[in-house]
Amino acid sequence: MLQLHYFPDNASLAPHLLLVETRAQYELKLVDRRSDAQKSADYLKLNPAGRIPTLVHGNLVLFESPAICIYICEQDSTSRFIPPQAHRDRPVFFQWLAYLNNTLQTEYMLWRYAEKHTTEPGSVETIKAAQAIRLVEILALLNAELGRKRFMLGDQVYGCDHFLFMLALWCENLPRPTSSYENLSRFMREMSQRPAVQQVCKIENISLLSYSA
Amino acid sequence: MLQLHYFPDNASLAPHLLLVETRAQYELKLVDRRSDAQKSADYLKLNPAGRIPTLVHGNLVLFESPAICIYICEQDSTSRFIPPQAHRDRPVFFQWLAYLNNTLQTEYMLWRYAEKHTTEPGSVETIKAAQAIRLVEILALLNAELGRKRFMLGDQVYGCDHFLFMLALWCENLPRPTSSYENLSRFMREMSQRPAVQQVCKIENISLLSYSA
Repeated sequence: MLQLHYFPDNASLAPHLLLVETRAQYELKLVDRRSDAQKSADYLKLNPAGRIPTLVHGNLVLFESPAICIYICEQDSTSRFIPPQAHRDRPVFFQWLAYLNNTLQTEYMLWRYAEKHTTEPGSVETIKAAQAIRLVEILALLNAELGRKRFMLGDQVYGCDHFLFMLALWCENLPRPTSSYENLSRFMREMSQRPAVQQVCKIENISLLSYSA
Repeated sequence: MLQLHYFPDNASLAPHLLLVETRAQYELKLVDRRSDAQKSADYLKLNPAGRIPTLVHGNLVLFESPAICIYICEQDSTSRFIPPQAHRDRPVFFQWLAYLNNTLQTEYMLWRYAEKHTTEPGSVETIKAAQAIRLVEILALLNAELGRKRFMLGDQVYGCDHFLFMLALWCENLPRPTSSYENLSRFMREMSQRPAVQQVCKIENISLLSYSA
């Protein structure tokens, strides 16, 4: 039994989607961000970075959302959500997962939590303004990719698409939201039709109304 | 023949180290950052994000340093630098690679290029000050890990250690440099003794004097 320490609509969403997609046996453990439970002594023993999610599987305690996604995909014997070793698309899976995680996610987090990145509260808005511009460039790059392909690697849905789905949902909060990009918007509508996506969004109380056809 | 588009002491360093460690057949292609060659039309065709490195291998064009490291490690039939599938340490390899890339690297880059993250030049120093504090926490976490283990996964050197080596070198520029952390410093000394590390640092003109025993 896999145990996912999660909070709704946090970085645990992509792993949660992949647990359902791969039909893994799992249970959810709420880490209540509203009371800063991710910084509690007990949780820090599991995850010294004090962030959500953490996955527990027997003796394995694993953090970092992309690593958890890779683990869930590699545990699935059908290998439907990560291209298997020696498959042409495998390196490109890791490429997009890295780009999404180290660029889209971190630049979004810097926009969202700008106050953590300055010692002067008065300069928060100048950081947010710069980040909004950077995020337009990043989303435009992904939008261009999705003009050439149905999903990140082509016609088939892989785990990096669930990662993009999670981040693109967050990016609806930006001054220029996800839905304003034609191909990203089409991608989100397609992903939203997947039963696993609908099931998880219902559990996490995430509305998919923006993406109903 | 693998072709690594690189610039000395940039994010191409970890892939370069792994090319030598795995005894791959490779050649280097300089992307001259001093003339912004990473933003040239030709380079953007290879790598739309306009960043260094890019790896070319036959028809495969791959960007994102962690993805290139994984590819080089998985190409190596001896599997000495990435734990093979089903190995206990494999998920932890991806965990640390992700943490190093999305946290240490991105928070360092924000300190180093703070001017790109604000619309107000006067607030650059307040960003750098906040980042210097965040980076102390991150390096302290890694230093604590290396108090329990010789390398990131234990007694054996894996590709995530080369990634840490690259970033820890950069972090010598911080107000509190890498060398001031006992276990990180010991790690750097051990890594510096590897023939592959010495060979690559010579090619990239990187001094290892700080880490001579």
